[in-house]
Amino acid sequence: MEGENGEAVRNKQVVFRDYVSGLAKDTNMEVRESTVKLRLPEGSSGLLVKNLYLSCDPYMRIRMTKVDVPGNADPFRPGSPITGYGVARILESGHPNFKKGDLLWGKTAWEEYSLITAPETCFKIADTDVPLSYYTGLLGIPGLTAYSGFFEVCSPKKGETVFISAASGAVGQIVGQFAKSFGCYVVGSDGSREKVDLLKNKFGFDDAFNYKEELDLDAALKRCFPEGIDIYFEIFGGKMLDAVLLNMKLHGRIAVCGLISQYNLEQPEGVHNLTNLILKRVRMEGFLVFDFYHLYPKFLEMVLPQIKEGKIVYVEDTAEGLENAPAALIRQFSGRNVGKQVVVVSHE
Amino acid sequence: MEGENGEAVRNKQVVFRDYVSGLAKDTNMEVRESTVKLRLPEGSSGLLVKNLYLSCDPYMRIRMTKVDVPGNADPFRPGSPITGYGVARILESGHPNFKKGDLLWGKTAWEEYSLITAPETCFKIADTDVPLSYYTGLLGIPGLTAYSGFFEVCSPKKGETVFISAASGAVGQIVGQFAKSFGCYVVGSDGSREKVDLLKNKFGFDDAFNYKEELDLDAALKRCFPEGIDIYFEIFGGKMLDAVLLNMKLHGRIAVCGLISQYNLEQPEGVHNLTNLILKRVRMEGFLVFDFYHLYPKFLEMVLPQIKEGKIVYVEDTAEGLENAPAALIRQFSGRNVGKQVVVVSHE
Repeated sequence: MEGENGEAVRNKQVVFRDYVSGLAKDTNMEVRESTVKLRLPEGSSGLLVKNLYLSCDPYMRIRMTKVDVPGNADPFRPGSPITGYGVARILESGHPNFKKGDLLWGKTAWEEYSLITAPETCFKIADTDVPLSYYTGLLGIPGLTAYSGFFEVCSPKKGETVFISAASGAVGQIVGQFAKSFGCYVVGSDGSREKVDLLKNKFGFDDAFNYKEELDLDAALKRCFPEGIDIYFEIFGGKMLDAVLLNMKLHGRIAVCGLISQYNLEQPEGVHNLTNLILKRVRMEGFLVFDFYHLYPKFLEMVLPQIKEGKIVYVEDTAEGLENAPAALIRQFSGRNVGKQVVVVSHE
Repeated sequence: MEGENGEAVRNKQVVFRDYVSGLAKDTNMEVRESTVKLRLPEGSSGLLVKNLYLSCDPYMRIRMTKVDVPGNADPFRPGSPITGYGVARILESGHPNFKKGDLLWGKTAWEEYSLITAPETCFKIADTDVPLSYYTGLLGIPGLTAYSGFFEVCSPKKGETVFISAASGAVGQIVGQFAKSFGCYVVGSDGSREKVDLLKNKFGFDDAFNYKEELDLDAALKRCFPEGIDIYFEIFGGKMLDAVLLNMKLHGRIAVCGLISQYNLEQPEGVHNLTNLILKRVRMEGFLVFDFYHLYPKFLEMVLPQIKEGKIVYVEDTAEGLENAPAALIRQFSGRNVGKQVVVVSHE
């Protein structure tokens, strides 16, 4: 390995330029080359890692907007590399829970080599019998989001009807498969024929539609759910939420995971049909995966065997190399990706 | 009593004319005189009653709009009397649970005498040591709404911050007093100085503001809740909900009881800040009191002693006579009432 004795090596980085209002573009980021010494700072309890896979996620659009929001959604810092979730190999460890050579997933930066200063927020990867990139998706944040959102927030019952928007994405495809194997009737919507085909023929949804081809979302939902919707797993937001509100069943539940159709807008669209929350006694609950980290071991225990038995499948959209990372992120914001958007930094 | 032997007597009625879009007016109803025989139909298991007090409620505006909604909110029937909750004296009973002379509260019609065909939905009034009209408000649907909405839907904890919109109304004034005695910090908003004065000086709210005098609702809420809102008891809707969403604390709860600012609009306003449901992990839940009828005895057991000890007070706005009922209902829709709007049909 280059730089093994601490000499400076090249460190390609994807640097955030400045805050964005409205549509984000790949020129809001720039790929630069800097150098880094492959040695932990003296006395550091952090980790020096080589990044392998990076995750492109819709919430990152929010982090491009300079707003004061609590918790995870801290804005990116202009002039600094994009940060996000990824899979990495440990080159040097100052933390007792990790050692050189371990693989981890957690919060890292969009660059070849990173210093992780909060290793306690990272998960060591124990099972490498699955594609490593899955730890940015099915076995990482999106997977735990799907698991906790569906099983903990939606309170599902067998036989209930489930609707998922942005259903072929990183989270949606997993929610749909969980809901099907749990015994629900599952319909998804997404924005292209190719994605609808995936939903029906690869992920086993009972039905699916392309919202871009529907003149009337309310009518599309009434066609798919003549008796109404028990559970809405909300990823898309906006007009879809309004149409869903007209079609919820009594005591239905809406888990609000994302509102991705809104993130690129200067002003979010208004949602008009909230009176249905009362008439139909609907619970609508926003959640973030960070509140459910304690469930990760239980989640892995359930999902790893299912992956190996082929009972759960996962579709990724892969961009090769950091040079292509800005475009991949923007593709993801506009829904042009098919499946979970991943950036490969290095195959090692 | 006139008509005691079954002869026809005058029956003044408030008849619904036709469905309304936008602002309702008192001319959407008309006061007519018909006659009725004060005798139960042969074999009826219903009740013949003399109506004493009638309740004006915001949800009745929805019933003036011809829409297909489930459950309670069945539209009024043009040409028939307005129906709603009221207090009545039984003149004749065909039902084993009720006898002549009993007082009840439940669903009746806006007329002097009514035939109640579903007595099982009515409650016999046992305690008459309180103002009878309270059974249209504090001891009826609004009271049980406040009780179940606050204690069951809001999941309150001592010391939490509570915000109530339309706070001096039939439900809001009770929620505020429950929340105070439970140990919460309670702020209300309403639409006049007189109402704000009631909130602060009669109902014991910690703070209150007149939303019509605030240029910026977000700023008003930040002034009242520098640390944010744990519980929002939503009655008003629209712009207030949007401002509240910006000020919710992590894991806050919004109980959606009503959205009265929207009922008179042709198109409901859009709500734009739902992303905060995710960022702050907020649960927003619509509810209807009908799901909590089983709690009525427990509610009475708590609240009756508090009324008698003066620990809970209740302000009513009273209209005398059925002739004044249409105007009273319209006053209530536009928030010109002060306190719970009641119509007195007869003092007996």
